[in-house]
Amino acid sequence: MQLSNLCWPAVQSLSKDIPVVIPIAAVEQHGHHLPLITDSMLLGEIVQRAERELSDSVLVTPLQWYGNSHHHLDYPGTLSCPPRTYLDLVAATVDNMVAHGFKRILVLNGHGGNDVPGKQALFELRQQYRSRQDLLLLFATYWSLAPNVAEEVAGLFQQEMAHACEWETSMMLCIAPDLVGDYLAAEPVEPGNAFRPASRAWITQDRSTTGHIGWPHLATQSKGEQLLQQFSAGVIGMVHRIRNWDGSAWEG
Amino acid sequence: MQLSNLCWPAVQSLSKDIPVVIPIAAVEQHGHHLPLITDSMLLGEIVQRAERELSDSVLVTPLQWYGNSHHHLDYPGTLSCPPRTYLDLVAATVDNMVAHGFKRILVLNGHGGNDVPGKQALFELRQQYRSRQDLLLLFATYWSLAPNVAEEVAGLFQQEMAHACEWETSMMLCIAPDLVGDYLAAEPVEPGNAFRPASRAWITQDRSTTGHIGWPHLATQSKGEQLLQQFSAGVIGMVHRIRNWDGSAWEG
Amino acid sequence: MQLSNLCWPAVQSLSKDIPVVIPIAAVEQHGHHLPLITDSMLLGEIVQRAERELSDSVLVTPLQWYGNSHHHLDYPGTLSCPPRTYLDLVAATVDNMVAHGFKRILVLNGHGGNDVPGKQALFELRQQYRSRQDLLLLFATYWSLAPNVAEEVAGLFQQEMAHACEWETSMMLCIAPDLVGDYLAAEPVEPGNAFRPASRAWITQDRSTTGHIGWPHLATQSKGEQLLQQFSAGVIGMVHRIRNWDGSAWEG
Amino acid sequence: MQLSNLCWPAVQSLSKDIPVVIPIAAVEQHGHHLPLITDSMLLGEIVQRAERELSDSVLVTPLQWYGNSHHHLDYPGTLSCPPRTYLDLVAATVDNMVAHGFKRILVLNGHGGNDVPGKQALFELRQQYRSRQDLLLLFATYWSLAPNVAEEVAGLFQQEMAHACEWETSMMLCIAPDLVGDYLAAEPVEPGNAFRPASRAWITQDRSTTGHIGWPHLATQSKGEQLLQQFSAGVIGMVHRIRNWDGSAWEG
Amino acid sequence: MQLSNLCWPAVQSLSKDIPVVIPIAAVEQHGHHLPLITDSMLLGEIVQRAERELSDSVLVTPLQWYGNSHHHLDYPGTLSCPPRTYLDLVAATVDNMVAHGFKRILVLNGHGGNDVPGKQALFELRQQYRSRQDLLLLFATYWSLAPNVAEEVAGLFQQEMAHACEWETSMMLCIAPDLVGDYLAAEPVEPGNAFRPASRAWITQDRSTTGHIGWPHLATQSKGEQLLQQFSAGVIGMVHRIRNWDGSAWEG
Amino acid sequence: MQLSNLCWPAVQSLSKDIPVVIPIAAVEQHGHHLPLITDSMLLGEIVQRAERELSDSVLVTPLQWYGNSHHHLDYPGTLSCPPRTYLDLVAATVDNMVAHGFKRILVLNGHGGNDVPGKQALFELRQQYRSRQDLLLLFATYWSLAPNVAEEVAGLFQQEMAHACEWETSMMLCIAPDLVGDYLAAEPVEPGNAFRPASRAWITQDRSTTGHIGWPHLATQSKGEQLLQQFSAGVIGMVHRIRNWDGSAWEG
Repeated sequence: MQLSNLCWPAVQSLSKDIPVVIPIAAVEQHGHHLPLITDSMLLGEIVQRAERELSDSVLVTPLQWYGNSHHHLDYPGTLSCPPRTYLDLVAATVDNMVAHGFKRILVLNGHGGNDVPGKQALFELRQQYRSRQDLLLLFATYWSLAPNVAEEVAGLFQQEMAHACEWETSMMLCIAPDLVGDYLAAEPVEPGNAFRPASRAWITQDRSTTGHIGWPHLATQSKGEQLLQQFSAGVIGMVHRIRNWDGSAWEG
Repeated sequence: MQLSNLCWPAVQSLSKDIPVVIPIAAVEQHGHHLPLITDSMLLGEIVQRAERELSDSVLVTPLQWYGNSHHHLDYPGTLSCPPRTYLDLVAATVDNMVAHGFKRILVLNGHGGNDVPGKQALFELRQQYRSRQDLLLLFATYWSLAPNVAEEVAGLFQQEMAHACEWETSMMLCIAPDLVGDYLAAEPVEPGNAFRPASRAWITQDRSTTGHIGWPHLATQSKGEQLLQQFSAGVIGMVHRIRNWDGSAWEG
Repeated sequence: MQLSNLCWPAVQSLSKDIPVVIPIAAVEQHGHHLPLITDSMLLGEIVQRAERELSDSVLVTPLQWYGNSHHHLDYPGTLSCPPRTYLDLVAATVDNMVAHGFKRILVLNGHGGNDVPGKQALFELRQQYRSRQDLLLLFATYWSLAPNVAEEVAGLFQQEMAHACEWETSMMLCIAPDLVGDYLAAEPVEPGNAFRPASRAWITQDRSTTGHIGWPHLATQSKGEQLLQQFSAGVIGMVHRIRNWDGSAWEG
Repeated sequence: MQLSNLCWPAVQSLSKDIPVVIPIAAVEQHGHHLPLITDSMLLGEIVQRAERELSDSVLVTPLQWYGNSHHHLDYPGTLSCPPRTYLDLVAATVDNMVAHGFKRILVLNGHGGNDVPGKQALFELRQQYRSRQDLLLLFATYWSLAPNVAEEVAGLFQQEMAHACEWETSMMLCIAPDLVGDYLAAEPVEPGNAFRPASRAWITQDRSTTGHIGWPHLATQSKGEQLLQQFSAGVIGMVHRIRNWDGSAWEG
Repeated sequence: MQLSNLCWPAVQSLSKDIPVVIPIAAVEQHGHHLPLITDSMLLGEIVQRAERELSDSVLVTPLQWYGNSHHHLDYPGTLSCPPRTYLDLVAATVDNMVAHGFKRILVLNGHGGNDVPGKQALFELRQQYRSRQDLLLLFATYWSLAPNVAEEVAGLFQQEMAHACEWETSMMLCIAPDLVGDYLAAEPVEPGNAFRPASRAWITQDRSTTGHIGWPHLATQSKGEQLLQQFSAGVIGMVHRIRNWDGSAWEG
Repeated sequence: MQLSNLCWPAVQSLSKDIPVVIPIAAVEQHGHHLPLITDSMLLGEIVQRAERELSDSVLVTPLQWYGNSHHHLDYPGTLSCPPRTYLDLVAATVDNMVAHGFKRILVLNGHGGNDVPGKQALFELRQQYRSRQDLLLLFATYWSLAPNVAEEVAGLFQQEMAHACEWETSMMLCIAPDLVGDYLAAEPVEPGNAFRPASRAWITQDRSTTGHIGWPHLATQSKGEQLLQQFSAGVIGMVHRIRNWDGSAWEG
């Protein structure tokens, strides 16, 4: 169920225990071969598939396409919310839903750069509502909800999500092939970090001239469809777990 | 031309003198008969019509649906960015485009509550870039771009835009009749302000129980189509003026 | 009645339903012929005239001369509060009076640049006090309170207020002729905006080399006296309406 | 010379080495017998006397009456800027003058509560302009500029400034006797701090029911006139030292 | 080498390519059996061991004990920096070292709650210095630098760090046994999260009454000594990699 | 008693009327002859001596070494918290202790640059808790607590604390002689301010090339020991006064 298509009396009459999904993504460079909208379009597709299946047992807010993408700002067209404003933005959206009485909220992310600030925002909000014991505030990036996808999808070379890569290009070939450029010409860009397991603060130009990271030339439409199925199944599974939460225990 | 469908090298190759349109709207209560998405859907339609006509002579960023709607927060489902964060949000989006070299930018608004903060954000940004003489930073709410609409559209009763009113309901009947509820049952709510010309700070519950302001029961699909044509024509006209700007004069 | 001349027990004993006027203006460049203090001096005069007439039926706070004038900062001597600080400043002053129990507050403005941030500040404050139904928070620029002034005052050429213009120069000739320089030598500067009805973010140097906008050379002392009478009458009328507010209705 | 009476070309033509005085005070409760305006009126008088003597060798900005008075907020009528906004306010005013090229700036204070934030604001600004070696940024409270006043003025009982006390009441008897209430009835309130030399964070109600601190009943007009002379002489002396600064040395 | 023991000319003469370690930890509740200082004491010990070995090839700043511990605030004695201030605090410390010319900086963390804000702070700083290509800004929590510790240390039951748990209690038994209370009486508290892999925003009382999480009763001094050796070896290894960085490549 | 060595149930069981000491200092340049840690080491020694004597009748939080030292930032190695963050930092630490129920709090400072912001932070906090009448929030710099030290200590030349001076060098010779460089070679640097009693905003390079201010070459270990005794006695005396506070009166 999409929140935005309801009128306010309809929202008022909903059970406040319904799982709420707040999708956040980005509009940022995706190399020479994918459009700026990629992250938002992919998350939008995954959420739509999940919502179609879940029907009235989930409430989905509009997708926030403005993301935390300052590391991509050197590439023309990238739209990126300043880091502190992004914290405020995510927290405010969740807070709106808390203000309306909803208690089980999943911020569902579709862009790697939103991971840290999204968690920071939820941390802050949980502390702000520290007297509340009935709030379930969750954050997940969609590909983390299908942790075995590299084994499940036939022929995948990449073991992890990268950027404008085999995975994302495959999915885009599925849902918007007209927007996909010459991905076969894209050279592989190794995603590794030489200082792992330390995390390194980076801008994209530290790592890639073209803007992509990974192996886009290995993309196929078939991989894309399987990935989309896996990821939307991951979302659906998480929403079921949220709906089934007994409201009392940390450990399920 | 939609920015989000381009890849970054395509953005890089654009003339930086192309008019940029940044649409901002809201997701907020629209009475008992219109969906929360109304403002965003209407602005989206108007921008799409204008873009179709203007083709490659305009660059449109994704529509920001998160608006300045705290006055509507008492009505369930309203999503509203806190006022200061909203200033940051609007300024940041424009600033992204300035950072990429674009110089002629129109923030095109579809929600009354964004009017003051949108202008404040542009004021702040202009001061920040005060050494720049080649920046054209404009703000307009779509219905202000068709100032004679009340005369042009046959049968209109309202002389001005209100909220979830004759005008908005008419347009929604055109583009999403399935989302329109029982507008015929909506009682008129006078839009006046007893202290005019002073402006009064308000929350919606000061003025309306149901959430709408104006005369929704007078809506018709035909009025809606004419309004949409007028408003998209207004946008098209403004974009032409921006494109024709000689870059030097305040007064054209 | 001036707040600042009272001792606190006298303030305590006032009815909290008395209309409160909070005057805000600016100290900023006014061309080659008018002093920096112009806006504050004019608003001060108008408020003083109104207060003399209204006597104990109005409570006036000290005039805040520090305004939102960053667009004039290129001209030496302009004092301007940074935009966000200005929002805080206006909101805080109103908030002080609300904290002391006053409920009917008019922020009375004497500088065009304060219009948007003044409304933004009142909006924010109204949302902060959203549970209060007895608060009347109003914002008005003094010349908007006499909307027919161009017809009422004999011989006026300008139809609207501009900057260091026919209107302001005329009033300054009335109350501080010694501070008025060679206004007859001032060339007309057209106030128009080529992108109207879109609003354009500007700095003064976009529009005027000398700093004035309008037709100062048409000023006369007689026009000035009539303008001051019209404007103070406008303020008096608004205060009467505030005093007569029945406290319950949006529409009077 | 008052900045506000000049037009901008006159400010432009001034030597940027002229001492600038920025007066800051307060509008806050002063007991049962003195008006809210006391601090601002006294500082205004002292500055006016100094300016009359110094003539064109000093540039005085308008007095900022909005002060840091949250400790007095329990007393009706007190107007007080929130602490962080006050830091911004003071820093911004000084920064305006630095932006216009002035280099020798004295923030002249007339309210005890402004002492700490005034110094904090100047500290912050000095760090911001840390590459500048030609900036002289000074802060002084007027009574600190006449450190021997308790010996110089005949009959003074108080050895230090307090609040709405012998000193302030005496000066108000001089310049605005009509605004002074029944000071003879005011009971002495000891100004001491039991934890001296530690400084204690307080609100006024910790220390005084009536709002005054000190011995107002000992005030006389004659003491007041002498105090005003001492304090204005103190300001004049400091301005002379600023004017004579050779611009190079910390130690004179 | 400890920064704090040097005088400034000694810092000036250092190679700016020396690896800098900035240790951050916490002072927060650690159950009934461990002192508030636990995280800071453990990280201090690990850093000291590493520094002893690395000698002049590392520069260590003082340990910041003030951490991001709002989730523990319900337990008396916890000291916790507000979330946004904590971002500023971490970023500022790193920024100080960048301002002094150092380029290879490892923020070394000893408290789980600092993980997200520490990364957020480094992200922000990297964007701020986005034109710098010679900056290596790393973040690591000490136990992540010895990823195989659960296999290397004989008899460990826990596979991961928890809170006031087998691992922390063991190490405290090694370095400050006098500060360890009755850990044998501590009941196991399962660390799991029912919504994994989604991350859940929590306060400690959601998960533990006593304040610890994990199996403290399994602690031994011998496990503690081995853990300390593993963790300090992990730090030493990372510093070597930083020192050997060729300065040009993302992938080593 | 050190807070950090306690577990949370021990803190819970403490009387909330125990005096709390929050030590704050700095890590900043101290000339060519003293280490960066000087202020923190000296305050740490003084607090430790006081705590040893006061035993369970005082509760001491960990020393915050991160100070307000932007004026020293030109000297390599100085670590300095940005001014506004420093206000937040100090206020937050005090606020943590207030949140845990403690009522008698002394922020004990060991660095001149913390004086103004420390007082500002306590002022802000007192206003925030303005309804509390049982809070005793004190700020003192350690050397102010022994106002007669210049007379008490044999042979002192300086009458006041300066920076890396006779006093500080003497104390460092006592407690960390290995960290003291060639202080005998340090030239005297006059501490005076040519504009006294006005306070001047400065950076250290305005006043000293080497970084010290005062007469370090006059330092002796014997003076140092006497100073430490005086200062720790001053702290002990103040803590006794806090403990004996009857909780009701401003004046003791």
